[in-house]
Amino acid sequence: MNVLVTGANGYIGRALAERLVGLRDLPGYGTIDCITLCDLAFAQPPTDARMRLVAGDFADKATRAAMLDPTPDLVFHLASIASGRAELDFPLGLSVNLEAAMGLLEALRIQGNAPALVFSSSIAVFGAPLPGHVDDDTQPAPVLSYGAHKQVIEILLADYTRRGYIRGRAVRLPGIVPRPPMSNGAWSLFTSVLIRSLIQGQSCTLPVSPKATVWLMSLSCCIDNLLHAATLAARPAGARIAWTLPALRTSIGDIVAACDAQTEGVSSQRVRYNPDAHIEAQFGRLPPLDASDALRSGFRADPDLNTLMNRARHAMRAERGTTPAANADNRQQT
Amino acid sequence: MNVLVTGANGYIGRALAERLVGLRDLPGYGTIDCITLCDLAFAQPPTDARMRLVAGDFADKATRAAMLDPTPDLVFHLASIASGRAELDFPLGLSVNLEAAMGLLEALRIQGNAPALVFSSSIAVFGAPLPGHVDDDTQPAPVLSYGAHKQVIEILLADYTRRGYIRGRAVRLPGIVPRPPMSNGAWSLFTSVLIRSLIQGQSCTLPVSPKATVWLMSLSCCIDNLLHAATLAARPAGARIAWTLPALRTSIGDIVAACDAQTEGVSSQRVRYNPDAHIEAQFGRLPPLDASDALRSGFRADPDLNTLMNRARHAMRAERGTTPAANADNRQQT
Repeated sequence: MNVLVTGANGYIGRALAERLVGLRDLPGYGTIDCITLCDLAFAQPPTDARMRLVAGDFADKATRAAMLDPTPDLVFHLASIASGRAELDFPLGLSVNLEAAMGLLEALRIQGNAPALVFSSSIAVFGAPLPGHVDDDTQPAPVLSYGAHKQVIEILLADYTRRGYIRGRAVRLPGIVPRPPMSNGAWSLFTSVLIRSLIQGQSCTLPVSPKATVWLMSLSCCIDNLLHAATLAARPAGARIAWTLPALRTSIGDIVAACDAQTEGVSSQRVRYNPDAHIEAQFGRLPPLDASDALRSGFRADPDLNTLMNRARHAMRAERGTTPAANADNRQQT
Repeated sequence: MNVLVTGANGYIGRALAERLVGLRDLPGYGTIDCITLCDLAFAQPPTDARMRLVAGDFADKATRAAMLDPTPDLVFHLASIASGRAELDFPLGLSVNLEAAMGLLEALRIQGNAPALVFSSSIAVFGAPLPGHVDDDTQPAPVLSYGAHKQVIEILLADYTRRGYIRGRAVRLPGIVPRPPMSNGAWSLFTSVLIRSLIQGQSCTLPVSPKATVWLMSLSCCIDNLLHAATLAARPAGARIAWTLPALRTSIGDIVAACDAQTEGVSSQRVRYNPDAHIEAQFGRLPPLDASDALRSGFRADPDLNTLMNRARHAMRAERGTTPAANADNRQQT
């Protein structure tokens, strides 16, 4: 079987590629013959004989033809312009997050192989501030172009799936931590800044107060969930194919306190709070989340804050062994 | 002010154009200087000095440039491929109902005039069969590509409006009667077939039973609502801009009985029933509709069945004075 990852040199894409390289086969698919990674640029040559790098814009016809050869049986579509950047540069967000994604769907339909397609959607489909409680009945109501475009692709994914052109599965990701310190234009980056600072013993200033609540998922938990989405059994007609993933809901104060317990209270002295009312309201008031349907379908959150912090430590140690992203204009990070 | 109508040679488009020609000005806009009508083809030359016909595919760049000159202050975007046809010819539906509509939004954004845009959406966004009750909280869940594409354009309309690129208003139309006997590929056409047969004293065979329930709106009531959408005061930020229009909910049996009362029972003898379980389930089980928000915003349904039938009679008499549509491939009827 052949697998394709778009946005493969982004933060999530690199970790997914690494995990795929460690697998001989995928349940339900058989032996992995080829792992095609597509992104604007790559920092490293292939690290595995099955790995094929396609450097280019996936909206570009030649790049798209290259990335769809060999014909994929499974696609992880991660490439996107992050929320803040897409809001500031509307034509860029429209072009990548909407038009190029639509082009990928059409190319897969025309190719005729009906691959599974795992789409990294976002809790941004719900807009911000979120309602007082989010569950499987909560209606999308995006307030950013980024969230609107994610919602649109979810709808098209469902339609292409209903028609049998692809087998789509969309997962709405919460904040994935710890994102790299360089900004990818995601407005919810402050939690990653905090976690990195705490782990590295550095100071930081946050645009929210200690009581800000967030939904988090460690990078490795995110990769588990993406692979789970890929290997889910066929969905019955009309069944849900877009899941709000379970997430660990915690507060900034709780994160700091968890580190204080391990550093004899030093951690909290390193954190300064300079709350921005807008950021706090939009990204720091995440309500209780009931992701029952995703849990029933086998998706998982990090079990507790200490596990999440340990996974973050592990992810940061792993980074030291790799070259940082050479993602030229930082476009295709999710 | 300049107004543009796409799909202007379709069933609704022709009636809207005729109504616009009868107006000197539009509340909130001032004097109407130019009425640009765009469709694939027109049967008649302009009937008014302010009327400008642009014959061509609105997805085509040259046609689009022509139809956007003079710069519109108000756009009625009616052009679309109807439900059944879009389901049978996916690339055509995608191209017209989604890609060309997105192209229009982009062209209007780039033009920079922030016009009002009235979009003819559809109750098809709710899918079929409908839930047991539909109100302003009912979540779209399309089951046809036609409905999925209408929902997508509603979302983009809201995003373009939020950003100030246009001032969008979407109205979800129920079945508009009496549509012409020639099929435009709409699967809900049987009600128009019935109403025309009853009015003309002809026989017909229906694919549903007498107890089938439908949501109807007369053509003239539809035009009233489109114009009302155009002249609504500016919406506050975050306010609803997509309305499920109120409709007259009635049954096939009630429509026949209303005509029986005027024909001494002859009407019911002309109607044969050959129910198709699929069509009855999808298009003949329309539940009670609570369109409170649309009513509060000033949209209206036909008040009762007799009024709707009288309006249908009037519309059919008016047709005799006009040449039938020469809409070459019948593409741009809504």
